[in-house]
Amino acid sequence: MDEFSSPVSNLIGELSRLPGIGRKSAQRLALHIIRMPKEQTRALAAAITDAREKVRYCSCCGGLSDGELCGICQDPARDHSTIMVVEEDRDKAAYERTRQFKGVYHILQGVISPLSGISPDDLKIRELMDRLKDDTVKEVIVATNPTVEGETTAMYLSRLIKPLGVKVTRIANGVPVGGDLEYVDEVTLARALEGRTML
Amino acid sequence: MDEFSSPVSNLIGELSRLPGIGRKSAQRLALHIIRMPKEQTRALAAAITDAREKVRYCSCCGGLSDGELCGICQDPARDHSTIMVVEEDRDKAAYERTRQFKGVYHILQGVISPLSGISPDDLKIRELMDRLKDDTVKEVIVATNPTVEGETTAMYLSRLIKPLGVKVTRIANGVPVGGDLEYVDEVTLARALEGRTML
Repeated sequence: MDEFSSPVSNLIGELSRLPGIGRKSAQRLALHIIRMPKEQTRALAAAITDAREKVRYCSCCGGLSDGELCGICQDPARDHSTIMVVEEDRDKAAYERTRQFKGVYHILQGVISPLSGISPDDLKIRELMDRLKDDTVKEVIVATNPTVEGETTAMYLSRLIKPLGVKVTRIANGVPVGGDLEYVDEVTLARALEGRTML
Repeated sequence: MDEFSSPVSNLIGELSRLPGIGRKSAQRLALHIIRMPKEQTRALAAAITDAREKVRYCSCCGGLSDGELCGICQDPARDHSTIMVVEEDRDKAAYERTRQFKGVYHILQGVISPLSGISPDDLKIRELMDRLKDDTVKEVIVATNPTVEGETTAMYLSRLIKPLGVKVTRIANGVPVGGDLEYVDEVTLARALEGRTML
């Protein structure tokens, strides 16, 4: 592909290695980048290397962090007796945006998936069990995604944690708010019926 | 947005300034980047600054180039008597992929657009006229996009070039190959009829 000059072709190549960016998008991005102000390209390049070199994980919850402990884990105002277990940092971010959860998190950094060769040992499950050793934790809310892998992981965790006498709960399945029943799949509709609440 | 650690939030911010990349995509890309091998992040960052700092334009056709002249302009095997005028380098790249055009190009680096404040003086039209001064060029094929701005630019160029005695042509409008007539707009259908050819 030497339709463009070589530094530009090289940039297109690097960009198209990113997830969700195909040849066409990479080309459009590259042609935009070579017209950006130089300070902005330098800021972008620096942000990329910086984020990769400086990335740290909280020694408590396993999430992305600036220091040894993340902001939530060291916040005394949070309820440290309730841990919400999520797959990824972005799931934690999604729940933080709701401003409805006052407890703390545990980020597994993945989900059990035999097809992708990811076993429980590849996830931060041992770290979660360590947090349950002293008796401060009263409830573990499993908020893995409602996929086959997420459900498998939830079942696995539940069997591991219940014997310790800690309450294990799972977030509800149901019809999404603002959704249209007509376009919701049957499994979700059935779960929404099962999980119906009093008005 | 400090749901993620600060170098990651910073990267999300920089990425979401790129065209077609919203908050969600920027977040997904950033979380991918911090898990890439360090060499790959460095290569990506270097490709960005490199492309921006080393970008050059061909002194003849105005397209992206590695040196003073681009590969096509210095290729004696190309037909230098036929110039195809395009808006952007990506349009030239699209025509190069067809392998059907043996002439040379001229890249306007934009299109006349009074609404965006782009006048003929902002485009590489003077450079095109300079190329027509000696009598080597026999035909100028105007391949600007079939949009209002592209058509305006084509009309403008035609009025400028015709008095020089150089043939000015326009690429054909018609039904796209593999397209479905049902989904083609009326203007295109009308143009396809007008431009019908003998079987």
